Amino acid sequence: MNAKNIYLSSKELEEAIVEYLARLKGFFENYQTREISTALSLGRVTGQPVYANVSSPHFNASAMDGIALDASVTFGASQRSRIRLSGDEDYIVVDTGDPIPPKYNAVVMSENLVETDHGVEISEAATPWQNIRPIGEDIVQGELIVPVFHRIRPIDIGAMLAGGVNTVKVLRKPHITIIPTGTELVLPGQPLGEGSLIEYNSHIFAGMIEEWGGTADRHKPVDDVYEDIKAALQQAVENSDMVIINAGSSAGREDFTKDIIRELGEVITHGIAIKPGKPAILGKVMGKPVVGIPGYPVSAYIVMENVIKPLIQNYLRLPEKPHREVEAVCSRRIVSSLKNKEFVRVKLGKVGDRLIAAPLSRGAGVVMSLVRADGMLVIPQNSEGVDAGERVKVRLHKDLDDIENTIVCIGSHDPILDLLANEIHCHDPALHLASAHVGSMGGITALSKGETHIAGIHLLDETSGEYNISYIRKYLSNKNIALIKLVNRIQGFMVKKGNPKNINTFSDLARNGVSFVNRQKGSGTRLLLDYKLKEQSIDPAVISGYGREEFTHMAVAAAVAFSDIDAGLGVYSAAGALGLDFIPVCNEEYDLAVPVEFLENPSIKLMLEVIGGHVFNEKVRALGGYSLERTGEIVLID
Amino acid sequence: MNAKNIYLSSKELEEAIVEYLARLKGFFENYQTREISTALSLGRVTGQPVYANVSSPHFNASAMDGIALDASVTFGASQRSRIRLSGDEDYIVVDTGDPIPPKYNAVVMSENLVETDHGVEISEAATPWQNIRPIGEDIVQGELIVPVFHRIRPIDIGAMLAGGVNTVKVLRKPHITIIPTGTELVLPGQPLGEGSLIEYNSHIFAGMIEEWGGTADRHKPVDDVYEDIKAALQQAVENSDMVIINAGSSAGREDFTKDIIRELGEVITHGIAIKPGKPAILGKVMGKPVVGIPGYPVSAYIVMENVIKPLIQNYLRLPEKPHREVEAVCSRRIVSSLKNKEFVRVKLGKVGDRLIAAPLSRGAGVVMSLVRADGMLVIPQNSEGVDAGERVKVRLHKDLDDIENTIVCIGSHDPILDLLANEIHCHDPALHLASAHVGSMGGITALSKGETHIAGIHLLDETSGEYNISYIRKYLSNKNIALIKLVNRIQGFMVKKGNPKNINTFSDLARNGVSFVNRQKGSGTRLLLDYKLKEQSIDPAVISGYGREEFTHMAVAAAVAFSDIDAGLGVYSAAGALGLDFIPVCNEEYDLAVPVEFLENPSIKLMLEVIGGHVFNEKVRALGGYSLERTGEIVLID
Repeated sequence: MNAKNIYLSSKELEEAIVEYLARLKGFFENYQTREISTALSLGRVTGQPVYANVSSPHFNASAMDGIALDASVTFGASQRSRIRLSGDEDYIVVDTGDPIPPKYNAVVMSENLVETDHGVEISEAATPWQNIRPIGEDIVQGELIVPVFHRIRPIDIGAMLAGGVNTVKVLRKPHITIIPTGTELVLPGQPLGEGSLIEYNSHIFAGMIEEWGGTADRHKPVDDVYEDIKAALQQAVENSDMVIINAGSSAGREDFTKDIIRELGEVITHGIAIKPGKPAILGKVMGKPVVGIPGYPVSAYIVMENVIKPLIQNYLRLPEKPHREVEAVCSRRIVSSLKNKEFVRVKLGKVGDRLIAAPLSRGAGVVMSLVRADGMLVIPQNSEGVDAGERVKVRLHKDLDDIENTIVCIGSHDPILDLLANEIHCHDPALHLASAHVGSMGGITALSKGETHIAGIHLLDETSGEYNISYIRKYLSNKNIALIKLVNRIQGFMVKKGNPKNINTFSDLARNGVSFVNRQKGSGTRLLLDYKLKEQSIDPAVISGYGREEFTHMAVAAAVAFSDIDAGLGVYSAAGALGLDFIPVCNEEYDLAVPVEFLENPSIKLMLEVIGGHVFNEKVRALGGYSLERTGEIVLID
Repeated sequence: MNAKNIYLSSKELEEAIVEYLARLKGFFENYQTREISTALSLGRVTGQPVYANVSSPHFNASAMDGIALDASVTFGASQRSRIRLSGDEDYIVVDTGDPIPPKYNAVVMSENLVETDHGVEISEAATPWQNIRPIGEDIVQGELIVPVFHRIRPIDIGAMLAGGVNTVKVLRKPHITIIPTGTELVLPGQPLGEGSLIEYNSHIFAGMIEEWGGTADRHKPVDDVYEDIKAALQQAVENSDMVIINAGSSAGREDFTKDIIRELGEVITHGIAIKPGKPAILGKVMGKPVVGIPGYPVSAYIVMENVIKPLIQNYLRLPEKPHREVEAVCSRRIVSSLKNKEFVRVKLGKVGDRLIAAPLSRGAGVVMSLVRADGMLVIPQNSEGVDAGERVKVRLHKDLDDIENTIVCIGSHDPILDLLANEIHCHDPALHLASAHVGSMGGITALSKGETHIAGIHLLDETSGEYNISYIRKYLSNKNIALIKLVNRIQGFMVKKGNPKNINTFSDLARNGVSFVNRQKGSGTRLLLDYKLKEQSIDPAVISGYGREEFTHMAVAAAVAFSDIDAGLGVYSAAGALGLDFIPVCNEEYDLAVPVEFLENPSIKLMLEVIGGHVFNEKVRALGGYSLERTGEIVLID
């Protein structure tokens, strides 16, 4: 083991950012502008105030279709004494937008004219300047159209062009080079060996930078070699406004970023008291910001949001926006360290009149936790966490109406839930189904706490052999719950292609040399396993891998398919998806439990329509391993 | 006069849209997808659900820097009885992300190791699978990453690449051709003759379409010739998904759009009960939407928002978002017709704890009313309007925090207010100054009703010769108001270069053959004129143009510069901006009145800093016609 790097500090986030921005004051003050075509300036930020070069209109124009005349010739006209006007002397016909000759000062709408052989008759006097758009009615030459540091919208482009402003000085977009480092990195699409990792962080960064108004240059991955990274950084600093070095910012034996920045410039902060994202480096080389961002995608995302976004906003003079926040009820306890401000990804759902925040995976490597997140629960430094049922503030990642249009499904996992979610979204793009996989008993608990609309369950009553109903009677006796019958599904052993270990019975799992992967406690599949083991008097302790838990059928299938594990228990569709063999063990009823009050909810009604529909049924059948005799039937439980 | 076209109908907006979308059902159902590189898919909408091709990680990986081992070799380790491990046999050193060989099942962090000569010592037992990221921890092969009809964010790109998805099927962007029509149209930058109009609407449309997710093709302007427009439309329908024909949608003698659409396809609706925007045409040619949009920019903008946006959203399966609305107090009465739903652009300001909505110009040709608008007040059909002080709902065009960071300035106009607004925004990009020009007395009224933070005033007390103070005492006696001294400015006659009509005194204005343009009633400049006329016993009725009113100094200057008007009264800076000659008449004090309670408001404090600063003073001096002896002084009025 080599000697380890240590953090310079563990600064509070706000303090670190304020200090960093202050140290970059000169960098931000030296902003550069560029003159571009107004027509191409959408989304850019003005670098100086924009004044009109011409008035709009630049002549007195008719505001109506009609005739232009001198108002005085109409004075005295009324219904009783009409005034007759001659087209040759008294007026000219004008359309909307036509110029008004200097001798005229009013327009009479064609609707108010009576045509005669040689002209028109008028029965109402005109007032001077009526129905005329005077010079500069819209824009006066020399008038301010948009101020400096203004983000240009489509309407601003129109107004500038109307005011004769055909080029506009805008702030240069900050150009940011992203340098991914790591010998293990391969580009998307390249062969993926054991130990190699697809380099995708730079693509996330580039997208974020583009959305914030900058441009990104993705450097090819650089090996973990001090001189190589140093050379890449030197070149990047020369060619861009800011540089991001991804990974190598921590304190491991191949974490060179800090030393390289220090050699070429200075490290202002190493280590911020946030989780994930702690090992960030805020540095400065040749007066420009150089930021070391940790390798784990969630850590990286949070450092991007909290460090790179303010850098770009300051560069473009765009005000920092307050976070859009909502108040929600946290669905379970979260323990957090006093040392860090923690960012917890949450799924939000409106169940009844409460907004529920369900924490997602806290793993810094779980990019899907960000894909699935509706918001971010921020636990302050100096807090030990949040209790279940506690009211919390959540920063929104989605619009609140999207969240309110989401059917929350907490409980057992089955691949057909993904299918159902897709079909619902196809029927109505405003509607979403979000499922969290916590097992059947987790679903029952969520229903009892009012934290979900529906729960996927498959719970075998060992005494009656009946599915689901007795559990609802027992655990949800104070609620009025119905069952939406979904599918009969086959549970069985997922084994490697050709079943090399010849696994056909539960006792085969206990054989020497057979390794197993389990489902988590509280899942229906785990209950099924335990029921069968007890029935057949097999001691769980002799099954190798009984203690290793996965949370979904797909995760179990993946463990069997891609590692040295021999068997797992799960559904046919998951085995089929990964090309595994499948040994059927039993049939079970997988249903959706739902409070009766929600059955009248329009989104649940649409879901029922989808479940009963031909398309969904065909797609479920195509997966294999399901039968659908009672699909869509509603069973009220007394 | 030719026979006039008539509207087919005057349909309610919602009804018209629902019918139109229903008639285009087949068009929307035939959506097309395109396979593109995932790396380039930011902002696109998925055309099918996206499932992972590989797991992430695709091997069991170390989650820490440390050593990988079989957990069983550590069983029994404690502080008192450390276990000694040998690097050759018991473990291998791993960095974060390294693969775990099959014979090992746990990682011990390097922080928990004591290094020895031949290996390490451990003082705590490891649990199986600790600090290991199992295969598929983030993404399991076959798992759903994003559903169909999902707008792709940076994080989604990362997750797809992590899941081995290197290309993605997305919905084609709707391609929309915009055909501007009108013989009077010239392209931006082309010579601008009398009666010609810069074609800028298509640029506004193109920007809006781009922001909504489509692509736009701007056709060159087509003359008002039936066959030319028809040929352009035919070609556009063949080459694009939708077509917009701009102008010619009304019922004038050169409004051909309706007949052309009817000849080539069908007109579904002509005329919607909205104002502005009534003469819209919703048509269909070769099964594709063809929309006739009126020529006035505000009418056009409102039809774009209400017709084209839903077309694009339906094409891209993006849910319609509810409008962001706030409740505000309407600052003055708005009379509206029972026949139409009316869209009134408003400026919003947070004055004290009330949000005030001040209606802007209702002219359909005033594109600046959209540039300046913070929101849109929608007056329903069947309503006669809104009373002053009435609570109204306003659809936001800007973020509420931008509005809350705006200093509202209602009152007299002076060009230095634009300058002040710019300087304030430069000092703090989060801060805005928005001014509405209603004259000095209008500013006094706004202060008395609590609708403005500050008011620009220059009100001469005819008896004392003193400026501003006596008016505040008289009209704002129940308020505690201070004056921020701004400038001494020169008022004078603005006349054409060389003063061809030799205008030097007020009696010159009454001469035969001299035409004048006035300021609106209630403005300080109008009061000054009336005071001088009365003093010199000149009858206003003999001044030609006394009745024609403009609302700003710049508008008066433009009228003198670009039409046959000979003189106006105003400030030097406006005359200077348009190259007019200037005949000084008198000095006056132009100040900002402010409620004392707002002096402690941070944004007013920043404004005071700017007013007192060197940069602002220099820029005002450069305009000419001002002196700044007391600038920034605060006068409390008892």
